[in-house]
Amino acid sequence: MPIATPLTALLGIKHPVLLAPMDVLAGARLTMAVSGVGGLGILGGGYGDRAWLDAETAKLRGFKHPFAIGFITWSLAKQPGLLDIALAAKPRAIMLSFGDPAPFAPRIRQAGALLICQVQDEDMARQALDAGADILVAQGTEAGGHGASRTTIDIVPALIDLAAGRVPVVAAGGIADGRGLAAMMMLGASGVLMGTRFYASVEADGADEAKRRICAAENGNSVRGIIFDLSRNNVWPAPFTGRCLVNDHARRWMGREVELMQQLSAVAAEYAAAKAAGDFDVAAVIAGEAVGLIHDIPPAAEIVERVVTEAEQLLLGRRNFVAAA
Amino acid sequence: MPIATPLTALLGIKHPVLLAPMDVLAGARLTMAVSGVGGLGILGGGYGDRAWLDAETAKLRGFKHPFAIGFITWSLAKQPGLLDIALAAKPRAIMLSFGDPAPFAPRIRQAGALLICQVQDEDMARQALDAGADILVAQGTEAGGHGASRTTIDIVPALIDLAAGRVPVVAAGGIADGRGLAAMMMLGASGVLMGTRFYASVEADGADEAKRRICAAENGNSVRGIIFDLSRNNVWPAPFTGRCLVNDHARRWMGREVELMQQLSAVAAEYAAAKAAGDFDVAAVIAGEAVGLIHDIPPAAEIVERVVTEAEQLLLGRRNFVAAA
Repeated sequence: MPIATPLTALLGIKHPVLLAPMDVLAGARLTMAVSGVGGLGILGGGYGDRAWLDAETAKLRGFKHPFAIGFITWSLAKQPGLLDIALAAKPRAIMLSFGDPAPFAPRIRQAGALLICQVQDEDMARQALDAGADILVAQGTEAGGHGASRTTIDIVPALIDLAAGRVPVVAAGGIADGRGLAAMMMLGASGVLMGTRFYASVEADGADEAKRRICAAENGNSVRGIIFDLSRNNVWPAPFTGRCLVNDHARRWMGREVELMQQLSAVAAEYAAAKAAGDFDVAAVIAGEAVGLIHDIPPAAEIVERVVTEAEQLLLGRRNFVAAA
Repeated sequence: MPIATPLTALLGIKHPVLLAPMDVLAGARLTMAVSGVGGLGILGGGYGDRAWLDAETAKLRGFKHPFAIGFITWSLAKQPGLLDIALAAKPRAIMLSFGDPAPFAPRIRQAGALLICQVQDEDMARQALDAGADILVAQGTEAGGHGASRTTIDIVPALIDLAAGRVPVVAAGGIADGRGLAAMMMLGASGVLMGTRFYASVEADGADEAKRRICAAENGNSVRGIIFDLSRNNVWPAPFTGRCLVNDHARRWMGREVELMQQLSAVAAEYAAAKAAGDFDVAAVIAGEAVGLIHDIPPAAEIVERVVTEAEQLLLGRRNFVAAA
């Protein structure tokens, strides 16, 4: 018995579970695995590597389930032509995060795709709605990777009140199981978007060691900051920072960002070498605060089914909390 | 139709809604208002003003509904005799927050009261369970006043998994309506503890201007830090910091804590004068991230009834969510 929400109706999907468009990690394989089982896979267009996008979208051509493609908006603005490659793959939606979606909205609409905007505060939500967003993703600071400071339990009801039913609101940040999906639906969300939970899946294009570290970590083992962005010479515009698992490198540099900048070329070389070597004591495992809820690396389809089955049981059973008069 | 949980059964209360024991604000009047309607009022014993505690507990003697009394544990350790005054009032429970509850647990148990421990991470939760806590309150960083850094959506499921059904877990931080109660129950919480929502009530012993500022604030208008503790010469042990509404004083000093320390006597005098004068451009309105969900100053009984009615409707499911097969 699927969970039906305005989000599932709008996207034409079976389950209100969205894959976060994690740069590189969410390739066509993971996107198809999530969409194939009835969620919405969102290809991680990220910073926009044209060759990668060509290759991954080629795999998605003719795929019969709805899927989407996500971009980092401020990065897409530097290579706006990438949007044409994405739209040519006939996605059900384009997801834009971190920047003004207005310049891209008309082309997305003209191509017949929906516009999903991920936002982190009320001003960004208003900007997205003004641009014609069809779906808002309210992202809390608990999310892995880039985000801002407001928390999920704060930003989700705030943006649901702001949207006032005009568009479905999806909750992101700190959610990795059916309890989280059911809870967000009680807040009024139409679904959830999960990243870290799908990182620890068979189909994610990430290192096995990174996935193992996610399984081993507890909630509280991640940190938000700019260390990994500094270390790879890729600092984002304010207010966006990145969350990753705490490792030796993060412990070494947290609170010493200025010193890191002073030694940047050496640190960046060390970091790049560690990343190439798969040394995650230095290279960051980009992951969110839900790591403590993740203990295995199943196929993505199994993750979706587990999450919706648990949520369905909670939603169907919730009447039992209310005692007979 | 009341919402029945292990928490309501254990405490012998009708509604799974607890009043945060806000220092000074949660006096006997507010405690009785929350308990009288079927929640659990928790008197704000705070730092332990003996005269205040004598006066307020005197009002509670013979009160026929279950109520509790809360203390700041590290402060109670300096005046352990205050616990006797509290226990003499025959509370259903003593709530201890911010420190090791073990030294006080035997006396609480011997007096026949339950022990509620508010905690902010896994280590504190283990310490509380080892001390014999009967109920855990998992407090997220969204909470007003003192707390730590982990968020509600992170710490609540983490501590529910840790407690593994041995004791009920109550969610605190960022919750001010029935959506929040229903959401936390989906996560597995047995109830919620609310502070800021009850601050903006008729019976809270706070300034009308402070209550009005809570109603006017939006989510995102509060900040966690040490400015107001510094300014009143009352800095807490790590990892505890305080959340309050952003005002002129907070804007002036945030990020300049060392300078504030260098001018402490002047700033403290200014702050004390502002507090005495009810000038909340300088004095802090201690409030949490749920301020944006709060728009009025009703009687506390009405707050409890609204929250449980909204949660009941969500739990009973006017909207079914789960589609028929």
